[in-house]
Amino acid sequence: MQFHQQGYVSGDPRIKAAAGIGLDRPEELPAEVDVLIVGTGPAGMITAAQLAAFPDINTRIVERRGGRLEIGQADGIQARSVETFQAFGFAERIITEAYRITATVFWKPDPADRSRIVRAARAPDDTTGISEFPHLIVNQARVLDYFAEVMAYSPSRMKADYGWEFRGLDIAASGEYPVAVTLVRTGGDGSGVERVVHAKYVVGADGAHSAVRESIGAKHTSVHANHAWGVMDVLAVTDFPDIRAKCAIQSEDGGNILLIPREGGSLFRMYVDLGEVVENGAHAVRNTTIEDIIAKANKILHPYTLDVKSVAWSSVYEVGHRLTDRFDDVPLDRLGGRLPRVFIMGDACHTHSAKAGQGMNVSMQDGFNLAWKLAHVLAGRSPASLLATYSAERQVIAKNLIDFDLEWSRLMAMRPEDFENPTELEDFYVRTFEFPAGFMTEYQPSMITGEGVHQDLATGFPIGKRFKSAPVVRVADANPVQLGHHHRADGRWRIYAFADAPAVGEPSALSDWARWISSSPESPLLKYTPVDGDSDAVFDVKLIAQQDFEGVPLGRVPSLFLPRTGPFGLIEYELVYAADPLNDIFELRGISRGGAVVLVRPDQYVANVLPLTAMSGLDAFFERFMLPRS
Amino acid sequence: MQFHQQGYVSGDPRIKAAAGIGLDRPEELPAEVDVLIVGTGPAGMITAAQLAAFPDINTRIVERRGGRLEIGQADGIQARSVETFQAFGFAERIITEAYRITATVFWKPDPADRSRIVRAARAPDDTTGISEFPHLIVNQARVLDYFAEVMAYSPSRMKADYGWEFRGLDIAASGEYPVAVTLVRTGGDGSGVERVVHAKYVVGADGAHSAVRESIGAKHTSVHANHAWGVMDVLAVTDFPDIRAKCAIQSEDGGNILLIPREGGSLFRMYVDLGEVVENGAHAVRNTTIEDIIAKANKILHPYTLDVKSVAWSSVYEVGHRLTDRFDDVPLDRLGGRLPRVFIMGDACHTHSAKAGQGMNVSMQDGFNLAWKLAHVLAGRSPASLLATYSAERQVIAKNLIDFDLEWSRLMAMRPEDFENPTELEDFYVRTFEFPAGFMTEYQPSMITGEGVHQDLATGFPIGKRFKSAPVVRVADANPVQLGHHHRADGRWRIYAFADAPAVGEPSALSDWARWISSSPESPLLKYTPVDGDSDAVFDVKLIAQQDFEGVPLGRVPSLFLPRTGPFGLIEYELVYAADPLNDIFELRGISRGGAVVLVRPDQYVANVLPLTAMSGLDAFFERFMLPRS
Repeated sequence: MQFHQQGYVSGDPRIKAAAGIGLDRPEELPAEVDVLIVGTGPAGMITAAQLAAFPDINTRIVERRGGRLEIGQADGIQARSVETFQAFGFAERIITEAYRITATVFWKPDPADRSRIVRAARAPDDTTGISEFPHLIVNQARVLDYFAEVMAYSPSRMKADYGWEFRGLDIAASGEYPVAVTLVRTGGDGSGVERVVHAKYVVGADGAHSAVRESIGAKHTSVHANHAWGVMDVLAVTDFPDIRAKCAIQSEDGGNILLIPREGGSLFRMYVDLGEVVENGAHAVRNTTIEDIIAKANKILHPYTLDVKSVAWSSVYEVGHRLTDRFDDVPLDRLGGRLPRVFIMGDACHTHSAKAGQGMNVSMQDGFNLAWKLAHVLAGRSPASLLATYSAERQVIAKNLIDFDLEWSRLMAMRPEDFENPTELEDFYVRTFEFPAGFMTEYQPSMITGEGVHQDLATGFPIGKRFKSAPVVRVADANPVQLGHHHRADGRWRIYAFADAPAVGEPSALSDWARWISSSPESPLLKYTPVDGDSDAVFDVKLIAQQDFEGVPLGRVPSLFLPRTGPFGLIEYELVYAADPLNDIFELRGISRGGAVVLVRPDQYVANVLPLTAMSGLDAFFERFMLPRS
Repeated sequence: MQFHQQGYVSGDPRIKAAAGIGLDRPEELPAEVDVLIVGTGPAGMITAAQLAAFPDINTRIVERRGGRLEIGQADGIQARSVETFQAFGFAERIITEAYRITATVFWKPDPADRSRIVRAARAPDDTTGISEFPHLIVNQARVLDYFAEVMAYSPSRMKADYGWEFRGLDIAASGEYPVAVTLVRTGGDGSGVERVVHAKYVVGADGAHSAVRESIGAKHTSVHANHAWGVMDVLAVTDFPDIRAKCAIQSEDGGNILLIPREGGSLFRMYVDLGEVVENGAHAVRNTTIEDIIAKANKILHPYTLDVKSVAWSSVYEVGHRLTDRFDDVPLDRLGGRLPRVFIMGDACHTHSAKAGQGMNVSMQDGFNLAWKLAHVLAGRSPASLLATYSAERQVIAKNLIDFDLEWSRLMAMRPEDFENPTELEDFYVRTFEFPAGFMTEYQPSMITGEGVHQDLATGFPIGKRFKSAPVVRVADANPVQLGHHHRADGRWRIYAFADAPAVGEPSALSDWARWISSSPESPLLKYTPVDGDSDAVFDVKLIAQQDFEGVPLGRVPSLFLPRTGPFGLIEYELVYAADPLNDIFELRGISRGGAVVLVRPDQYVANVLPLTAMSGLDAFFERFMLPRS
């Protein structure tokens, strides 16, 4: 964590100095905003939290509910989400309070007496070390609290505008604020009053019944019959021995439970399968009472019993697998013809079962994907065409998720005797672990994702996939750190210069590259970094040497990596890293000993891999989607 | 972290439900309090934070200053302190914002040109794995902020009473609140107004010039000539390559610097030696200006230069090595004759140089040592004679610290050419590392520390030293955890039952022991746990099995370790642990395969080691210092 650069900070360094809109942010919704986000779920809040890092952008986030979410809803946090929380600065705190999943335990009918369940298998999570972050369970409400804190502590001093419901929008063909959004006050003194807010961009993160989706006429298609679930968060006394483990429990009569232990050591959630239901039917299943759900759970758990002492939350819901054909307001037949102004994300464009614990996670990645693009376009760093990549990138991810979830739900719902292979369920879980952990996302070549011509220079950083961190040693203070953990959610591009073999300071491809990027008119640093800001305002350029830290003399490091920033022109010491000989990043990530340049997007996805010698390639890549400084 | 046991908690689980005094805590200082703490430095605040866990005890903490500390003062945080912060729940946050020391770099005159300094040696910290916690640097103000948060979030809802200065006290021979403390308002409307607060106990944590110390007539003796230091927290530009490393720098002319990089990546502190001064002299050295200090630093750093851009804080101070003969109000010739009512801690009873980064750390351990004793006496769990152990235990620790610091200061101040062995300084540092890390404290046998008769049953848990954590696996959820990290600062005693070899549930010494402690009239659990509270209110009893977690069937674990607590009688699942076969706690800590019982004090020090078969020994041990429940 870096602070004091502008002068001594006495208090909590997580609280940034106010700037821009944050200096005098109006309590009331303004008539004109840059970005209006509808809905304070995980997708909306991460979008707001990311945009809050840009105090020159006026972002507001409205919510129909009168205040903070208190209970219920999603709770599964995949490792990719914890990695994302790390970028926003609250991973260590949420890890401390969350439940950590280390395995999934499979319970099935006892072959000797099929009326009884027995433990059949235990599948450990993440046996391949896909992430240094854990798989967690914590209530969505707490995730939202942390994003709210990020917003409040940001230079923008952003907070949610509760008590406003989205009613509709009109998109004008021109004008600075072309989207007119009608909102209505949902409570308090002005209840029922309508307001029109004019926005440059609108983000619909307003859930499965999204009114924003309806307003842009996107086609929301059911791809599978609906399924009903009883879900309950309860405190109970039980003799079921794995009550504190994640369990997939299948009983003889086909009833099944997904058991999710919850944070705090006592609470747990059960998803009790209530079977398939007819879409648009009479919804009779919704009359299932909590007593029915508890009774069904007891039946499935036999011979164990469940004595529920307190129900924190319960719900019966029917969920279909539904996908929207596009995630913005540009009809598919006009793609490329005009640019998007309205976006939808999260449940507004993809719904599926809760069984794989994916919803909140994929929704947050929707928001993380879009937010930096909006920021760059609004800041004039990138053309508006960048925004078309949001729907293009995320719609296919949602499609993959639904396909995965259909298969997982199908397996979970099968009668044990119907499996060809008795371990098919757990085999599928282990085989596909990378997907639910959140790391199968692989963006295809586009204006912001390279074609992979030089992928062989860094095989462990697949282009289009998230940058997988690895240990390094910071040279200035000999601290062992995770390289990826220095990629904070600040909207900046990362340029990692992995050095070639010569010692730093000796003639090398690295020193030629450093000279070029520091001084050439074709250098992205010179072309795109505003003249009036710090040299690291747009790009965060880091050096990783092959030598150990004692072999990297700071005095001979190119000044590019020891820039002087801030009002005092202090030297920035956190850009120079060395391989840890015991855990060499060059080996771990398959990086060429001839060096490599790895470009990483603000949302942590690898955008390209280039040789140190490919100066023109680097220039050409950023030219695709960046605008010269004005 | 455990919560939801009393019902669903929607918000931050770190905020405990208010209880006792916290339900309606008066803003104004009351006329009568149980404990009055004077001074909000690290010693006073940890005492208050620990007492805040006891909402039936009315504790107030007064401070002369009008508000929170903003700048300056101590910054060295040894691993033992981070371990302590973990018990209070904020280690992970303070680690994130702190600077981490991984080594000390020694700079000395270049043998080839003694006018120039060169890097001579690098001594890594903690090469022996003495702690799983890091060695940190973070401003004292932030440490105090975190303790203030612990207080505010506690059931007591405690906060400091700023703007009150201690004037004096009188101790009556009898009465419920025998200590009459006179305070005076230091600012605001009522400035200068005196108030008398009557207290059962008073804690003087009021610094080197302690008025509380004076009021109890304790003898504060100088044991060494005073030494003057110039200290500055600055932002600067320099070509000194180790500016982000902790350095001991000795120059040819004998001038020396202790360089401490600070949190945030830019700020650093320099202690510049200004030489010995005459005690009670004219204090001419105090006229040394910041410009003088910077000039002296530049001279010592030659050939490197230091261009100071911003001075966050600076001070010139003379510090002696001083020790008070006793840490409470009982004159040494009356020891045992009467019991203490007033205690002093921290700088009030021991001062020394800042060079070893010890002051804040030892002071916090003073407070951690005393606070639980006060709580137990006030709660009627222990006789008041327990309080006499505070001075007896801590005075000798302060003596050891001063001896260590004298030696370290002497070495630091020596001219390089005066060392017999050129590596004497760094050799001393490495050889004695356990001391400054905070782990050399070893309390001698007393009413609360056993005699070591059965030490051989757990050689890695030396009686009198702090309980060194080790990895285990929690059986219920298969989570790898650190056993010691479940010891929170809640004032409870820990009883760790390390099982003998038979599987849990089979006849064994463990099952006999569990039966005895659950049901015998001689069992400490039955004798000392209040009837109207949870069974784990006073003792936290944990089982550690030798088998791996899959070999510990929860259904066969003695019910002692799966108690039912709280309003719903929920099962507590976090008391049953298994050895991690890859990192076996029985091997790591030398625990007998015949099992052992390890008793740990509320302040994390090992109190005794006993065989599982020594029921009467366990009974006899607690009888020394606990009172039967009323």
